Amino acid sequence: MALYVQKYGGTSVGTVERIEAVADKLQRFKEEGHDLVVAVSAMSGETNRLIGLANAIQDDPSPREMDVLVSTGEQVTIALLCMALQKRGIQARSYTGSQVRILTDSAHMKARIQDIDVERMRGDLEAGRVVVVAGFQGVDAEGNITTLGRGGSDTTGVALAAALKADECQIYTDVDGVYTTDPRVVEDAQRLEKITFEEMLEMASLGSKVLQIRSVEFAGKYKVPLRVLSSFKDGPGTLITTEEEETVEKPVISGIAFNRDEAKLTVQGVPDIPGVASRILGPISDANIEVDMIVQNIAADQTTDFTFTVHRNDYTKAETILRGIAKDLGAREVVGNNKIAKVSIVGVGMRSHAGVASKMFDALALENINIQMISTSEIKVSVVIAEKYLELAVRSLHSAFDLGKVDTVSE
Amino acid sequence: MALYVQKYGGTSVGTVERIEAVADKLQRFKEEGHDLVVAVSAMSGETNRLIGLANAIQDDPSPREMDVLVSTGEQVTIALLCMALQKRGIQARSYTGSQVRILTDSAHMKARIQDIDVERMRGDLEAGRVVVVAGFQGVDAEGNITTLGRGGSDTTGVALAAALKADECQIYTDVDGVYTTDPRVVEDAQRLEKITFEEMLEMASLGSKVLQIRSVEFAGKYKVPLRVLSSFKDGPGTLITTEEEETVEKPVISGIAFNRDEAKLTVQGVPDIPGVASRILGPISDANIEVDMIVQNIAADQTTDFTFTVHRNDYTKAETILRGIAKDLGAREVVGNNKIAKVSIVGVGMRSHAGVASKMFDALALENINIQMISTSEIKVSVVIAEKYLELAVRSLHSAFDLGKVDTVSE
Repeated sequence: MALYVQKYGGTSVGTVERIEAVADKLQRFKEEGHDLVVAVSAMSGETNRLIGLANAIQDDPSPREMDVLVSTGEQVTIALLCMALQKRGIQARSYTGSQVRILTDSAHMKARIQDIDVERMRGDLEAGRVVVVAGFQGVDAEGNITTLGRGGSDTTGVALAAALKADECQIYTDVDGVYTTDPRVVEDAQRLEKITFEEMLEMASLGSKVLQIRSVEFAGKYKVPLRVLSSFKDGPGTLITTEEEETVEKPVISGIAFNRDEAKLTVQGVPDIPGVASRILGPISDANIEVDMIVQNIAADQTTDFTFTVHRNDYTKAETILRGIAKDLGAREVVGNNKIAKVSIVGVGMRSHAGVASKMFDALALENINIQMISTSEIKVSVVIAEKYLELAVRSLHSAFDLGKVDTVSE
Repeated sequence: MALYVQKYGGTSVGTVERIEAVADKLQRFKEEGHDLVVAVSAMSGETNRLIGLANAIQDDPSPREMDVLVSTGEQVTIALLCMALQKRGIQARSYTGSQVRILTDSAHMKARIQDIDVERMRGDLEAGRVVVVAGFQGVDAEGNITTLGRGGSDTTGVALAAALKADECQIYTDVDGVYTTDPRVVEDAQRLEKITFEEMLEMASLGSKVLQIRSVEFAGKYKVPLRVLSSFKDGPGTLITTEEEETVEKPVISGIAFNRDEAKLTVQGVPDIPGVASRILGPISDANIEVDMIVQNIAADQTTDFTFTVHRNDYTKAETILRGIAKDLGAREVVGNNKIAKVSIVGVGMRSHAGVASKMFDALALENINIQMISTSEIKVSVVIAEKYLELAVRSLHSAFDLGKVDTVSE
């Protein structure tokens, strides 16, 4: 007898048949006596179809009108899911973001949720109804339709769970949980039973794209227990929680994350004077290029080497900007490399364990993998290596930190 | 410098290219200095696509959820049209039915408009913006999405024009006006410059389906000048107005309407006692069968023949019901015919002209067309004839009342 907020993504509701399957699943939860609030995405492909219509008219359409347009995608799903529930004799009622209402700021296409009115949903739950809410969308104070940006349905789910003080927010997706690393790279990658919000954030931002980052931050902030499960396969999934396991049981490292999409740029021989970092990164940021890792070393000759990574798509653009800056700064040279990969070990356990980083470096050295860049946070160590060593590095680290199962995971 | 409310139907906004063409048209009106409020339908085919999704789940889905579903159709169009306007440098803002807000009763799928809040639209118009409103939809007092039923976008246009006290409500459609009769039947059918609301109602209900009846009633009630025009062809269209022309200029008959969809049923030898009509029609109405013409004659033997017409699709159902009633009433026989057609002459001019009906009967007699049933109203005379004579009857009446042009209408 719990209150669950469940979120079903675009693939899970991609066809009428899959919507019927979701309704079957909800029926089982309902029969177990649980109260259900369900947030859904647009049917897969629908959002792209709508964006295609807009782009046939304009390359850069008004964000306000884009929100009016794409918010119809989820609105279709909520109606269809309610019909599928009603067909099964389950009372259900759908709400758009504005109907709930999910109040957001006015930043169209990337709005943030400010408040959720739970009164109407509470009334429906008390009347025994399943509440079906359009994910990804809200309404601003002036009544304009807003969207939370792509993937924002996760955030809707978490925000609903927080507002309703739900027992758990369950995100149904096409993977059955969070793994120690990508099973396509490491065959015996293991599904994690539990992971902390902080670890999940590091895993997500590093390329294990199971959940939208903002939804995890939100869940962490409001302490909403969050569970990732598969829509297509029964199983307990992975629980993302604030509770840290006792250190004895807790493995030092929870997972290995990696990212192939980055490129590295270095300005060499920069005069070592205050304000250099912002003079380099200011124009990069002005050009809307996002910077990930930043490393700076003092060289012997009173100059410094300044290195950072950007998305590979921004590499050429960033390099051009850098050449101009380097000239102005009197720096020696700009060098870059877009054949790199970032590999990170993540785990709250490393807080209380010394030597985690050196164990990582040892494992890589054993395979003769050269480390080009290092960056660390409290629960993460990231290295940049040549892209060709990526799989080798991930496998050797997975094994060095004993993350594999005894028996191999079957497909 | 007028305020126009314009309505574009599904065919007019059926593709991105057609939406661009509508934007071009609006741009011209804007450049002439007019204020514009535009009501649009869903892109043609979209509403049927959505209904198809619903019916894949349930034959008879909840009306509330159907409204949530199908209202997305117009929401897509308003966003795309605003984008097309903005691309042309025209400021525009879209509103769904709930955003405007168009307050309706709670009769889902056939809601009636109760009130329209014009404040926000007035603000937009003052700021020089084109206001684009989703037709066909509204919101009830509890915030539930409602729709006005199919074809309801015309009603939205008229209701907006009434609320805003617009100079004219212009309904853009795929025909370029109201004709004296169907040009597919009579080659020299003529476009009418003007027609009264009453005539239009008689024409519409008799099968000249240019405008949704309810929108004409609404326009008549609130005295909104209504103009039907073509989206695809420039021209003045037909103005539907309360002003009657001076009798001298006014033709006696405005048009010939006809309908092939009816069937006729007669209960013969009904005892001529009070209450018979309701005992016959009560069960028909209870079975949700709509009755059109009703004629009753007293026969010589103190019994009466009771005849009425129904939609051809309801013929068999109605006949079965009638046989039961006839037995109870002690009537002699039930006879029917579904190979009939109804032809009507319509015109406010006949009010002040005697002999219009006899001129009609003469014209039909000249062609040896037998009249099976006659029914008259103040501005209309309808006859039922054998279906095979329909075209002949329409052509001879069109000619008898001098409705044709001197030069033939080109296609």
